[in-house]
Amino acid sequence: MTLFDATLTYYIDSVAKGASISGFPEWLPSERVVEQRVIDTLREVFELNGFLGIETRAVETGASLLKKGETSKEIYLLSRLQEVGRESDTPIEERLGLHFDLTVPLSRYVVEHSGQLAFPFKRWQIQKVWRGERPQEGRYREFVQADIDVIGQGDLPDHYEVELPLVMVSALERLRAFGLPKATVHANNRKLSEGFYRGLGLTDIEGVLREIDKLDKIGADEVAKLLVEECGASEVQARACLELAELTAADGAELASKFDALCAAHGIAADSEAYALAKQGLDTLAMIVDQAAAIRPGSVIADLKIARGLDYYTGSVYETFLDGAASLGSICSGGRYDNLASQGNRKYPGVGLSIGLSRLVSYMLHTAGAHASRVSPASVLVAVWNESDRAASNAIANTLRSRGIAADVAPTAAKLGKQIKYADKLGIPYVWFPGQEGAGDEVKNIVSGDQNRADATSWEPDSLSARQTVVID
Amino acid sequence: MTLFDATLTYYIDSVAKGASISGFPEWLPSERVVEQRVIDTLREVFELNGFLGIETRAVETGASLLKKGETSKEIYLLSRLQEVGRESDTPIEERLGLHFDLTVPLSRYVVEHSGQLAFPFKRWQIQKVWRGERPQEGRYREFVQADIDVIGQGDLPDHYEVELPLVMVSALERLRAFGLPKATVHANNRKLSEGFYRGLGLTDIEGVLREIDKLDKIGADEVAKLLVEECGASEVQARACLELAELTAADGAELASKFDALCAAHGIAADSEAYALAKQGLDTLAMIVDQAAAIRPGSVIADLKIARGLDYYTGSVYETFLDGAASLGSICSGGRYDNLASQGNRKYPGVGLSIGLSRLVSYMLHTAGAHASRVSPASVLVAVWNESDRAASNAIANTLRSRGIAADVAPTAAKLGKQIKYADKLGIPYVWFPGQEGAGDEVKNIVSGDQNRADATSWEPDSLSARQTVVID
Repeated sequence: MTLFDATLTYYIDSVAKGASISGFPEWLPSERVVEQRVIDTLREVFELNGFLGIETRAVETGASLLKKGETSKEIYLLSRLQEVGRESDTPIEERLGLHFDLTVPLSRYVVEHSGQLAFPFKRWQIQKVWRGERPQEGRYREFVQADIDVIGQGDLPDHYEVELPLVMVSALERLRAFGLPKATVHANNRKLSEGFYRGLGLTDIEGVLREIDKLDKIGADEVAKLLVEECGASEVQARACLELAELTAADGAELASKFDALCAAHGIAADSEAYALAKQGLDTLAMIVDQAAAIRPGSVIADLKIARGLDYYTGSVYETFLDGAASLGSICSGGRYDNLASQGNRKYPGVGLSIGLSRLVSYMLHTAGAHASRVSPASVLVAVWNESDRAASNAIANTLRSRGIAADVAPTAAKLGKQIKYADKLGIPYVWFPGQEGAGDEVKNIVSGDQNRADATSWEPDSLSARQTVVID
Repeated sequence: MTLFDATLTYYIDSVAKGASISGFPEWLPSERVVEQRVIDTLREVFELNGFLGIETRAVETGASLLKKGETSKEIYLLSRLQEVGRESDTPIEERLGLHFDLTVPLSRYVVEHSGQLAFPFKRWQIQKVWRGERPQEGRYREFVQADIDVIGQGDLPDHYEVELPLVMVSALERLRAFGLPKATVHANNRKLSEGFYRGLGLTDIEGVLREIDKLDKIGADEVAKLLVEECGASEVQARACLELAELTAADGAELASKFDALCAAHGIAADSEAYALAKQGLDTLAMIVDQAAAIRPGSVIADLKIARGLDYYTGSVYETFLDGAASLGSICSGGRYDNLASQGNRKYPGVGLSIGLSRLVSYMLHTAGAHASRVSPASVLVAVWNESDRAASNAIANTLRSRGIAADVAPTAAKLGKQIKYADKLGIPYVWFPGQEGAGDEVKNIVSGDQNRADATSWEPDSLSARQTVVID
């Protein structure tokens, strides 16, 4: 291990502590390089796929935030310092609060600007969101989400329900270069579940979905117990719900035949309204897994226990898991929502997925060993012999910069060893020595020790040292 | 004007309304392209100059936010929804609030992570900030700032006081491609002003600076009146303050000789403590204007009426004005602050400047006529003949994307005219026609009308249409 490596390790071993305020992660500069590259990569993939980038304001009205969503109780409301003590004069609906996701703001944005957007409107958005969790919970209260959604005006073709998860799969595939394991999208459909539950005679659909969502955490027996106790299910109905959740299939045809067999076994008639609703969801889910298999085999699978907490989903729902990192939970979730936004009689149905980016970056840094190839973006540190010669060093740095080579200049005309140590601490691979008394300039690669004559108007760093990048241990 | 142009105009003529919540600007997708390119450009310049990128959490404690700064009264405090009605149980110092600038968070970050940073620490940061202004004021309550700062541990060489404004000048120079007029940094020094005022016998230094800051707005006579009424100045002292504010000089030597003449005229002895303080500031300011003139003539000038509101500045202060856009006020401000952060006896002096990015983008969009060359990042829209052929169109789009060419696919297999109209609405210059019944693919440039045979594995858009860019009317 060279000195250079040791320094890098020193810089990257730390964790984002946000020491003084728990739940608000903050990265060191070298860690931020990883996050920034992840953001750049996602943006590139989203734009290659024709998504338009937007940024919405950080705040929405209380009325808008409280309308939908399981997290409605985990909101930060704002008050102006001057209003302290008089906060309650304003009804919560009229107060401002920080957005807790990017889907609710998107719905509001689309309705507000509908006259100036082309539909279907495909957008990407990478922004911070906030959850007003109790500090004791140890959860992130501020984190970055990376979302893609497509919103239709009036209607929205269902092909987006397979295309959007595939865009996310291709984006996550690119992140494998930063240490991310293979990702698999698990898809289900709310209509399929709801139709089946109704066919069984159950009526508390939200309740059943909520309990089924706990399957991986607490196991089938506990879920069955809760379905009986909380959702008015009989033992038989509860077991039927679990049978549906555990149904697996290799393709759409197998999914359909197994589902039909399950319906027949539980007396759900093929001509019932409940079956018709389930069939809509089944057809969409079968289409999704078959089309995804044709394009990227193994990337999107049917998983009938996926429920999703948020109540605004009306059709497809998705969760995404990483090979060997089940404990992370779903790192990219979403679904179809037909009723989130409307304007008079006109609806704006949407499909979207959201990556929990901060958690992903934390995994890359602390589990996968991703780190910046160097702390500083600069390739070169130009040395300064005397403070009176600083202008000459600045001129060299400016020449390099004008050619796209990032350069820093030594902070002081200290002993050369100290200047080299500063470069080393920042991971800057080259130190440039301005020529003295008519001699030419020289440049030293402080990793390899090579030192050569160089001219700032033509010199190039070697390709490995040219750019700050992300590497894996 | 072609149909293509007309569509673009339709998209970009709108303003960021943030209709429902005043002071929270929001851009349309085509406007966001301009903002995003501005951010990308600034980041590139900052990194070329060796600045490390960081992002700090959006919140600080009330104690930290209330410590310094004129805007201490314009803060948004947070409360969890569950705590509504009990907000006041927590003292303001312990509550969380949104940061109102990026300098206070930087100071906190540097002290918190000092063991893991190399000093001097040069960082860039582009983030939203919030001001809890009264909605009626019509000011931005959420906006983006783009900052560079360098923070020393213990001490900080003064050459950064000329280098940082020059980095900002070179960044603003790049933005002229987006319609920004030439920018000039106006520099002053707090020590120079304070020494002079003390030499006159004045003691309310903050007060004098506050009134002098109003010179451009209300004129010399009003300021003189306020100096007398509010700051305890005599008529003669007030006029002397104005003489200093109006002093101009072509270079450091002229600045020094005019300043000395002014001191002599007002009886400020060269061996007084007050003069010694002023002389420190004078020397730094002379150094700044002379060195800046040698590198970029006309980019940084001495302007002795620059005061800056924030009270944390202790030496150099900067404001930046655009040619022909004086009404915008300063678009890039900052200074040297020696006492913002400390750890025990160790100080962390800093120098930094901050661009008010949202206001700049608003100027570019609404005054300079900057707009996106097209709304969508996609170069190509692949047509769909029948929904049953969608897979073939998707395959073509994926081939183009794998070669770095951004592509979208028609939302429905509508009539061809409708598909072309969708491309046109989004400004997508090419529509791709998948070959039918064994015929080859063709691609049409819908701006020029040219249509040619094309192969997705080798076709390239013309260089003008390859990338979404920013253009000026």
